[in-house]
Amino acid sequence: MSEEQENIQFQLTDELIEQVENLIEFKNDKDLKTLLMDFHHADIAEILDEINLEEAVYVIKLLDSETTSDILIELDEDTREKILKNLSAKEIAEEIEELDTDDAADIIAELSEERQAEVISHIEDTEHRDEITELLAYDEDTAGGLMAKELVKVYETWTVAGCLRRIRGQAKDVRRVHSIYVVDRQNKLKGRLSLKDLIVAKSDQKIADIYITSVDYVFVDEDVEEVAKIMQKYDLEAIPVVDKNYTLLGRITIDDIVDVIREEADKDYQLAAGISQDVEADDSIWKLTKARLPWLLIGMFGGLGAAGIIEQFNDHMGAFVVLLSFVPLIQATAGNVGVQSSAIVVQGLANDTIDGNIVKRLLKEALLGLVNGIAIACIGLVITHFVFSTPYIVSITISIALVAVIIMAAIIGTFIPIFLDKRGIDPAVATGPFITTSNDLFGILTYFLIAKLILGF
Amino acid sequence: MSEEQENIQFQLTDELIEQVENLIEFKNDKDLKTLLMDFHHADIAEILDEINLEEAVYVIKLLDSETTSDILIELDEDTREKILKNLSAKEIAEEIEELDTDDAADIIAELSEERQAEVISHIEDTEHRDEITELLAYDEDTAGGLMAKELVKVYETWTVAGCLRRIRGQAKDVRRVHSIYVVDRQNKLKGRLSLKDLIVAKSDQKIADIYITSVDYVFVDEDVEEVAKIMQKYDLEAIPVVDKNYTLLGRITIDDIVDVIREEADKDYQLAAGISQDVEADDSIWKLTKARLPWLLIGMFGGLGAAGIIEQFNDHMGAFVVLLSFVPLIQATAGNVGVQSSAIVVQGLANDTIDGNIVKRLLKEALLGLVNGIAIACIGLVITHFVFSTPYIVSITISIALVAVIIMAAIIGTFIPIFLDKRGIDPAVATGPFITTSNDLFGILTYFLIAKLILGF
Repeated sequence: MSEEQENIQFQLTDELIEQVENLIEFKNDKDLKTLLMDFHHADIAEILDEINLEEAVYVIKLLDSETTSDILIELDEDTREKILKNLSAKEIAEEIEELDTDDAADIIAELSEERQAEVISHIEDTEHRDEITELLAYDEDTAGGLMAKELVKVYETWTVAGCLRRIRGQAKDVRRVHSIYVVDRQNKLKGRLSLKDLIVAKSDQKIADIYITSVDYVFVDEDVEEVAKIMQKYDLEAIPVVDKNYTLLGRITIDDIVDVIREEADKDYQLAAGISQDVEADDSIWKLTKARLPWLLIGMFGGLGAAGIIEQFNDHMGAFVVLLSFVPLIQATAGNVGVQSSAIVVQGLANDTIDGNIVKRLLKEALLGLVNGIAIACIGLVITHFVFSTPYIVSITISIALVAVIIMAAIIGTFIPIFLDKRGIDPAVATGPFITTSNDLFGILTYFLIAKLILGF
Repeated sequence: MSEEQENIQFQLTDELIEQVENLIEFKNDKDLKTLLMDFHHADIAEILDEINLEEAVYVIKLLDSETTSDILIELDEDTREKILKNLSAKEIAEEIEELDTDDAADIIAELSEERQAEVISHIEDTEHRDEITELLAYDEDTAGGLMAKELVKVYETWTVAGCLRRIRGQAKDVRRVHSIYVVDRQNKLKGRLSLKDLIVAKSDQKIADIYITSVDYVFVDEDVEEVAKIMQKYDLEAIPVVDKNYTLLGRITIDDIVDVIREEADKDYQLAAGISQDVEADDSIWKLTKARLPWLLIGMFGGLGAAGIIEQFNDHMGAFVVLLSFVPLIQATAGNVGVQSSAIVVQGLANDTIDGNIVKRLLKEALLGLVNGIAIACIGLVITHFVFSTPYIVSITISIALVAVIIMAAIIGTFIPIFLDKRGIDPAVATGPFITTSNDLFGILTYFLIAKLILGF
């Protein structure tokens, strides 16, 4: 079992990278091949992501296209883009020939339009070429953009034995046979069948007698997030994709959906953290700045707006200038409550666990804010009065403002994502800096208005 | 296709729930059964999550255990717990009989220890009972806690034909046959085989000649997150679980891993938003308060700390009291930068895209902070001076403080998660309110120290 053990326990060490770099430097192709062929293509991709471009291109040109096509799919998008720029259209076409249609279309879609046409013209297998061209026409955020053309289909008139004989041919092109789809003569989806059903059935049975008519499917223009939800909810490992006439067009497999789920979660997380593009820790400072600066600017304008509000009240505050010391308390509380409320709503919307009644939800948040607010305000009252020695009336003012600000922040944090969602905008943009900035402003304004009302300055 | 169309387009409407509630009220069992049996068990679970407990128990007792066992698995944990309390140990055991071992063990694990023993004693199928008891012994966060005992295994000495004949028996108990595992007489994992390989092979071939020896596997005590990473990286749909001697114990399927990925992402998202337990928008106010108040308290103590810092400087500030107006600007900027930096690190650690060199990473963050800081400071300088008419020296002070605070916040936001990770603590706790609170304090302190240095009060 030692071989498989290595397979799992692959570790991307500095020593390994150095070893690869040395073999490339001395053009020791034989040892390099022997070393790399022991690794899974996903592991080789990790190595290529670490070494420099010239070295990576060297490896890609060294290995056979059956392996390198799989490696290309696993590479970081940035690395892949750079490597493809160093390959000719014909070389890329050779990689494409080895790939499933969905992966092939994904790679071609990353090329410039001019290059796309050139690469496609070099694909020798005309059926493969036509299928890829078809897939390129679909929006990448739809079921069509995610599906592969590779699938196994049978007609309901076939017998089990005839079916087994015939799918042997089809199955060779399909890496994993999840389901066998049953279609009529017009290629309309009628139902499905698992390989297990086929093996368990008697060989002279008709497909029509054993197939399952209730098959889940999605339309080709369905949003990928919706596809992910359906496949998760019903625990599907593959789902057929049909057009409006229920013509079978392709299938989507769970491994692609896992990527969709992960990317979606990463995107929401980054939006909540105020990062506006899909970046990684290892990206360039320029790319990271582009992703981070916009939200910092929004935060800055919020801060300057808060300064404006303070200046308005400052001139009249007189003896109550001590109120200024507690601005950070108000601001932190408003921000934290807003982020909590919006995060729960955004997650609920993403998981479809939030039902429609917006008024009921806002009332619940207000009540929740009241409970949290009173708890925070009581502690605040004691500490500001006894530790900071502020007069009772000022401590009471701060406490009342805390309750009001918490309720208000909870309502804003709940309302904005729901509002955006109803408008068809991704509610995840209304988390993080967006909600903290607006809550900072409203919170500080509320604080001073309440103070003015109670203290009468 | 109308039947399947309903299947996909299931909508949990108020009308549907009312209809179900009416049928229950009038004990119209026949129509209720007819209505519900058209739905997928995951859809019925959604209905039960919405109606009240008595009604849900009524439905569970009405339908046959083959359906209800599947429904139980799909229910919200809270709803399931309540329903199980209303079922006898014998009734629960009947549900358990219908379930795969992994789901069965999950449900039993949710019961009190006393009840667990009672339910297990009612399971009639002794093999099923022993397997479930075995699974209950594993930690739920390990491969053992996630795996199922249901799998198809063959010996390498068998022929393809003999194999097909024999697995027909085994396959009946296994919902989906992903892979067929090849074992030796001691039940040690030797390799794998897909059903497709078996069908494509000639019937008199030996298994030993066609099986794939390089099989991915995980050890039974492997962390589930690690299992998820391996299955994602290598695009696996099932993975065998072995003990230290490579004895085949069970298998984990991708649908369970999808749940692990989703839960992990949800948990990180909630931690970043300052919510400390796994809560949903529909949970009770009490449960939501317990999850939210702790972080609000941390934020509050941060705010009070900031007030303490301001009070210290306030007495000596004299003419420079205008500095107080810009505290929210400093605070918002420090918080936003900190959250951005920590989120990128936390995500990088979760996806294994961050390598070890901590000094290099901190230097990069400092440089990034400098770039962002200078951009923010320049705009801040212009606006504070020309819009707010603060004296040049004050505007310059604010700008210098902004640069310093941004660099510092970036370094703290990067350092803390990496530090926690090295200590074996989940770095995700160091996002959200944790990082904003500490950055608020350090930011405001830095601001006034710089102001004191430049303005000399």
